[in-house]
Amino acid sequence: MKKIAVILSGCGVYDGSEIHEATMALLAVKRNGAEYEIYAPDKTQYDVVDHYHGQQSDEYRNVLVEAARIARGNIKPLRELDINAVDAILFPGGFGVAKNLSSYAFKGADYDVLPEVGELIGSMYAQGKPIGAMCIAPILLAKSLGKVSVTIGSSDDDAAKAIGGVGATHVATTSGNICIDKANKVVTAPCYMLNANITNIFEEADKLVKELIAMM
Amino acid sequence: MKKIAVILSGCGVYDGSEIHEATMALLAVKRNGAEYEIYAPDKTQYDVVDHYHGQQSDEYRNVLVEAARIARGNIKPLRELDINAVDAILFPGGFGVAKNLSSYAFKGADYDVLPEVGELIGSMYAQGKPIGAMCIAPILLAKSLGKVSVTIGSSDDDAAKAIGGVGATHVATTSGNICIDKANKVVTAPCYMLNANITNIFEEADKLVKELIAMM
Repeated sequence: MKKIAVILSGCGVYDGSEIHEATMALLAVKRNGAEYEIYAPDKTQYDVVDHYHGQQSDEYRNVLVEAARIARGNIKPLRELDINAVDAILFPGGFGVAKNLSSYAFKGADYDVLPEVGELIGSMYAQGKPIGAMCIAPILLAKSLGKVSVTIGSSDDDAAKAIGGVGATHVATTSGNICIDKANKVVTAPCYMLNANITNIFEEADKLVKELIAMM
Repeated sequence: MKKIAVILSGCGVYDGSEIHEATMALLAVKRNGAEYEIYAPDKTQYDVVDHYHGQQSDEYRNVLVEAARIARGNIKPLRELDINAVDAILFPGGFGVAKNLSSYAFKGADYDVLPEVGELIGSMYAQGKPIGAMCIAPILLAKSLGKVSVTIGSSDDDAAKAIGGVGATHVATTSGNICIDKANKVVTAPCYMLNANITNIFEEADKLVKELIAMM
């Protein structure tokens, strides 16, 4: 059975992985006959956001420990991911991508990618294995790989401009659709970067995972 | 458009709402042409569980604030739920049901239901509006309503016995299937009370919501 590693960045749209995107990614993997393993970096979150009041709260939480909520405890530290044992990797979105897997949330266009994430993306690419990313997560692929085509939805978005700024190509996409870069085996979907609803996320995750599997 | 209130109990299987069940409930509502509103009680969680290490952690978190992660911030305190403005209510599972919406996790068969939850269930029932519950959440309906038929999966489970103990009837069910009590307009699904996978949760949530809508 084909195996897809899903990489999380916490638990909750404003400081971690977007929960609907992460859950739809897991569902899509399973519904399409593959299996998933879940990973997250073992590090302190950039911040903790009270999702009810919409404010930063004075707490410290760990990315791996919080991501374990989405994984029902079945998760491993990202450093334990053996790329020889997986057929693809997939990054759901959420501000955790911009805060915990990269510095995009606070550095903008001059952002860096967390070294262990950048190295993982580079190694998967070098092995010719497909890589998927949802919502804001395509910024990770753009910075790590350079000349790939990805989408975060609207080309007017600052994140789309940042993608162009690091040498990648942004392709505008509408809700329910995905962006396929066949040559580079990179598949991306706009998800909640657009004004989407949960059925759009379901559809996009399904299309994205089908394409990853077809590329294996 | 028909409106279903989804009642959460936190964010994470071991101390709050089970995330896959909650997300699949929202998806099922939207895919079946209804709309959802999300509510949770504004109270301190019974405990906080580190889902990676599987241990209680020395923290305090609020049920509403954490549930807001699943709701992407679009959530209201349960006390603001106007039952005249909704067509059905639906409880996803997770230990939050047994810890924050009832005392089942620590009192077992002698459990109580949080008064504002019990009153909500009683009022919906009195108005002839359908009520859904997933996983362990049927214990709330059993205790609040008495003579209803519900499922939490296996009749050998202690929770099934507790359901019998409060005067309700437990109906054994297998993964992918639901229990329909047409006379009482109560629909329940075993979800992760059985050794299920995420596609089972998707299927059960979809069947459950279709039935709720058919009962409206």
